[in-house]
Amino acid sequence: MSRAIRCVTQSSCQCACKPAQVHSLVIVVVVAVVVIVVVIVVVVVDASIPSGVAPCSEALAHSAQVLAAGSGIPEIKCYLNGVKLPKVVGFRTWIAKAVGIVFSVAAGLPCGKEGPMIHSGAIVGAMVSHLNLQKRLRALCVEVEMRDFVAAGACAGVSAAFGAPIGAVLFAVEEGASHMNPKVLTQLFVASATATFCSRLVLGPLFGGIQFGELGTLVPVSFGRYDEIVFRLREMLIFMLMGVCGGLLGALFNEMNRRLCLWRSRHIGPRGWRRFLEALGVTFVIASCRFLVPIFWRAAAGHHLQATRIDELGPMEKLWWEMGQPAIKQLFHAEVEPEHVLSHHELLLLLLYAIANYVFSCWTYGLGVPSGLFVPSLLTGAAFGRFVGELLAMLFGRGSTAPPGVYALVGAAAMLAGTARITISLAMIVIEATGIGSFGLPIFATVMIAKWTGDYFNRGIYDLHIIELKHVPILGEEPEHDMVRLKVEDVMASSLVVLEAVETVGSILTKLESCSHQGFPVMADYRLLEGTIQRGIVHLILLRGAKYHVFQPATGLLSSPPPIIPYEAMAWRRINKFPDIKDVQRSLTREDYGLRIDLRPYVNRNGYTVRPDASMASCYSLFRHLGLRHLPVVRQDGTVCGIITRKDLILSGGLPGFPAISDSGR
Amino acid sequence: MSRAIRCVTQSSCQCACKPAQVHSLVIVVVVAVVVIVVVIVVVVVDASIPSGVAPCSEALAHSAQVLAAGSGIPEIKCYLNGVKLPKVVGFRTWIAKAVGIVFSVAAGLPCGKEGPMIHSGAIVGAMVSHLNLQKRLRALCVEVEMRDFVAAGACAGVSAAFGAPIGAVLFAVEEGASHMNPKVLTQLFVASATATFCSRLVLGPLFGGIQFGELGTLVPVSFGRYDEIVFRLREMLIFMLMGVCGGLLGALFNEMNRRLCLWRSRHIGPRGWRRFLEALGVTFVIASCRFLVPIFWRAAAGHHLQATRIDELGPMEKLWWEMGQPAIKQLFHAEVEPEHVLSHHELLLLLLYAIANYVFSCWTYGLGVPSGLFVPSLLTGAAFGRFVGELLAMLFGRGSTAPPGVYALVGAAAMLAGTARITISLAMIVIEATGIGSFGLPIFATVMIAKWTGDYFNRGIYDLHIIELKHVPILGEEPEHDMVRLKVEDVMASSLVVLEAVETVGSILTKLESCSHQGFPVMADYRLLEGTIQRGIVHLILLRGAKYHVFQPATGLLSSPPPIIPYEAMAWRRINKFPDIKDVQRSLTREDYGLRIDLRPYVNRNGYTVRPDASMASCYSLFRHLGLRHLPVVRQDGTVCGIITRKDLILSGGLPGFPAISDSGR
Repeated sequence: MSRAIRCVTQSSCQCACKPAQVHSLVIVVVVAVVVIVVVIVVVVVDASIPSGVAPCSEALAHSAQVLAAGSGIPEIKCYLNGVKLPKVVGFRTWIAKAVGIVFSVAAGLPCGKEGPMIHSGAIVGAMVSHLNLQKRLRALCVEVEMRDFVAAGACAGVSAAFGAPIGAVLFAVEEGASHMNPKVLTQLFVASATATFCSRLVLGPLFGGIQFGELGTLVPVSFGRYDEIVFRLREMLIFMLMGVCGGLLGALFNEMNRRLCLWRSRHIGPRGWRRFLEALGVTFVIASCRFLVPIFWRAAAGHHLQATRIDELGPMEKLWWEMGQPAIKQLFHAEVEPEHVLSHHELLLLLLYAIANYVFSCWTYGLGVPSGLFVPSLLTGAAFGRFVGELLAMLFGRGSTAPPGVYALVGAAAMLAGTARITISLAMIVIEATGIGSFGLPIFATVMIAKWTGDYFNRGIYDLHIIELKHVPILGEEPEHDMVRLKVEDVMASSLVVLEAVETVGSILTKLESCSHQGFPVMADYRLLEGTIQRGIVHLILLRGAKYHVFQPATGLLSSPPPIIPYEAMAWRRINKFPDIKDVQRSLTREDYGLRIDLRPYVNRNGYTVRPDASMASCYSLFRHLGLRHLPVVRQDGTVCGIITRKDLILSGGLPGFPAISDSGR
Repeated sequence: MSRAIRCVTQSSCQCACKPAQVHSLVIVVVVAVVVIVVVIVVVVVDASIPSGVAPCSEALAHSAQVLAAGSGIPEIKCYLNGVKLPKVVGFRTWIAKAVGIVFSVAAGLPCGKEGPMIHSGAIVGAMVSHLNLQKRLRALCVEVEMRDFVAAGACAGVSAAFGAPIGAVLFAVEEGASHMNPKVLTQLFVASATATFCSRLVLGPLFGGIQFGELGTLVPVSFGRYDEIVFRLREMLIFMLMGVCGGLLGALFNEMNRRLCLWRSRHIGPRGWRRFLEALGVTFVIASCRFLVPIFWRAAAGHHLQATRIDELGPMEKLWWEMGQPAIKQLFHAEVEPEHVLSHHELLLLLLYAIANYVFSCWTYGLGVPSGLFVPSLLTGAAFGRFVGELLAMLFGRGSTAPPGVYALVGAAAMLAGTARITISLAMIVIEATGIGSFGLPIFATVMIAKWTGDYFNRGIYDLHIIELKHVPILGEEPEHDMVRLKVEDVMASSLVVLEAVETVGSILTKLESCSHQGFPVMADYRLLEGTIQRGIVHLILLRGAKYHVFQPATGLLSSPPPIIPYEAMAWRRINKFPDIKDVQRSLTREDYGLRIDLRPYVNRNGYTVRPDASMASCYSLFRHLGLRHLPVVRQDGTVCGIITRKDLILSGGLPGFPAISDSGR
């Protein structure tokens, strides 16, 4: 086998490349360190800008990149599932996101910085895999490796955001990696452990009051540390009931947000002055509400309307003036005196706070600003949970139930699980971010129940944005139920664009121009499948072919072995930087059009195929487990009769509200 | 499509079955509850039998089932990887294991009860899936579902053994489940959470001194709770160095154990009086050593040789008389007075203890008794770690380093990781079993380094027993490096036993008798692949065929549609309880032999195929990711030219010391 062939087949066979493990890990560590620097900048800036001073500048940041809006988790989820949205992992997106999130958090919007941090981490991961290092580490060029880097980056982002290394890995597994294996798992762990290490090293001395270089369990955890939690068996039932409520509230949240986003896409559009004004308006309303409610509340309670400092406010009033993480910390940990029970008045304000947060965060998500959903959901849930806890304390007396802070914790987990339908990783993140290892059981039970309840009504918020609003073909864990009865031939596209193993330059070029497919079946004798070839490689062959005498005369015997482009010229420097079709057209002369090319040395013969009478369910497994993008359909006798793409898998599942998809996506 | 066809195709297509989620979960909970009852029995019995009184009865227990010997984790690993060893999940194995482990722990052997508990859990899981419940829950009959049950059971076992629900899930993912998806992950979590819940509920009041019904973080954790751990940056380096040492010691352990096991298999054999005597002898030597060392040590130090109670012994002497978990607890938590530094004498005894444990546990593993490796390895590592910690305290003074108990913890993790090469789940189990959420980073770093160091020299102890001692074809995470260059045709078996779509009963029977293959390609027109069929289904067709008039005359046109066996008769009650070939032979008359059967309604057409010129690496991915057992090799023109089985994948990897495998395994 010639070197050129090996180059092509190796690079296109995902599993064939075993890169130097050590190299990957070095890079992963680099990713993590870079991520953490970003994160620390964000944390520090975020902590030092007083709330309310920058109520409109977030809109400036977003105008740079549309993709910088939102939390970024749906986009990363698509990317890891194998669907590339343009510019998701671009440099400009990163800058827009990192700068934008500082403003949108500082503006007092109910946004978390965690989602954007995860997106930033993923982008850094992608950028590292683009670096020139890869001259030496060629294995990193392969797309599947790049995907692992993005996953590792996202994982480092979660880890740094919450200081939760294990939760971060589980998050990447649960939300992202559809092609998980222990090697990737190890990379994820290394990335997240490094990120946590760096953030602990810096944040401990900054906020925890310990010496630099000292590590250990004294380091502050994100949501404050619980010491000892005692609860009774009967309280497990209440926790589970809270899970049901969380699921219901989450489903309602998602449905409201879906309608809001549909309304937005019809009346506001993805960019322009309307979107800018909307962001401005929403910020104004929310910031005003949060500022004014405690003042009017005090006025209604008989206090004089006068200048008030934050420490003069009662604990429930103070919440309105606080931001995400500190507010959560207060809901979790502020213990009222043992004999004191909240007044009806205070309890009502707490409920109002929970509802206001619920509405505000639903309104904000999908706005044209970078905004995470993690912290707002946790905060809303914590408020609801604390309300339940205080109510129980009022009814049965303090001491006969677990402290209300514990209910706040359970409520926070239930709410986020109900909205985002994250389960295992969420439980783990909450456990790590509060420093309790043994309270996992109620958290986990609540979270699972919330997810199941929510799933009964609709999709999770991320999947909703991906599938129902953006119509991206991501594949779920399992095939839709109907797929068992569907056959591949019911779904496949039978109008194929195929290349012949030996074809003229002109004819190849016409076919390339006629469609935007990214891969082509290559045929032998117009009938049998020789293999598949990527569009980029065909472009490259056409561009370099004249130089290396790959073009052969239009008639007569073909040379054997065929002339090939040497390995060095095929090795592209940057992934996906294949030559453009325009460059190819320009480079070809009129005479070249009649010459023939023998594509066989470049064909990937390792590809998988499927039969037209196979069930769609088994076809789905192939796509899902092997991360495929297209799959030729081959009859029993070896003739090609169609092709299945990712989008076919989703269409055949019969999703509600899914529009017809044009052929161009194939 | 007729009902019979659908029955067959559905049951043989792994991904096609979406069972009622709720049903599975109910069953999983049942598994967990049953497991926990077993576990509690073991714990209670284990705690109440004084060490040393039953030095020989473990050998009685083992004689019931050979498979009951050892830890059981390698066998479960094989099972989950898709290779069934006979009786691994049988009822008798369970009884032998559960009874045997009580004796072998009570006999004072360095065995952990954790491995056998995991095995017991897996067996309970398998048994639940065999129960008559499945008349209603038919989806559970499918083999892949059964595998999930076994994984859930094993997971519940880990969870109950260590009270570590999250670590248990990660363990199942890391060691077991090669076909992981979020649905399985959820099942695992439900099983492990239930197991932990039950064990907490019962063990808390029993040993933790809290009221029944109270849960929470006050519940005792397996290895005692650490409060606050402070360590310095420079100590991270020491921890990592300990990781290297753990890896080296682990690799040495594995190599010694491998040689010992080879010697055993040559000179002692799997059962019989020699094996019995060996167990007796080893127990005698180890129990005597452990009993006598502190006594002689005291004598050498000048004490009089007289009756000594355990509380008169010094902390280092007392260790010798204690069993696994309490000894670990002491090494982790027994803090000597701040100003006191261990004497050279005591330090030496500690080192001796570590070495003795190391040798004893290597000697015991592979003996004919049920014996886990978890706790002995942790204990050995803890002793080495404590030694390092005390040494540092002696050199630099107490207070300038982390407490020696922390070093013991790190050492324990390093040793186990070096031996068993478990990483992420081990880190998590240690974290949960000591109640520290924020010490994960050093644990994780140490564990990874220990694994990498060990991997440089040889395989982990479980893989070693599976692959090098038992020669079981399990598939690793990734194809061997050489596979990129190998092609399927280099490896495949081309002497095939194939069935024709329409064939006479006699000819089918001859083919079935001629080999022991479990699946057959079915051909159309002697050339093209129609699909595949399982041996069991062919047996069933032959057995029931006469009754349902499926046999057609030897000549003439075939009926169309072909006569089929109705769905009810095809639905088998118990998985893998297909009729035996002998029953089939007996049921057939001489006249039947000439009649024809049309197999087409029963053929599974969803199967995957591979081309002879595809690389072995991509073939490997198919096996690994889709959990296949055999794969027909089909030429470009649709003709069948061979078959690839699991064993071919291992052979082609060129493992050292792998014997020629007979064709019977196909």
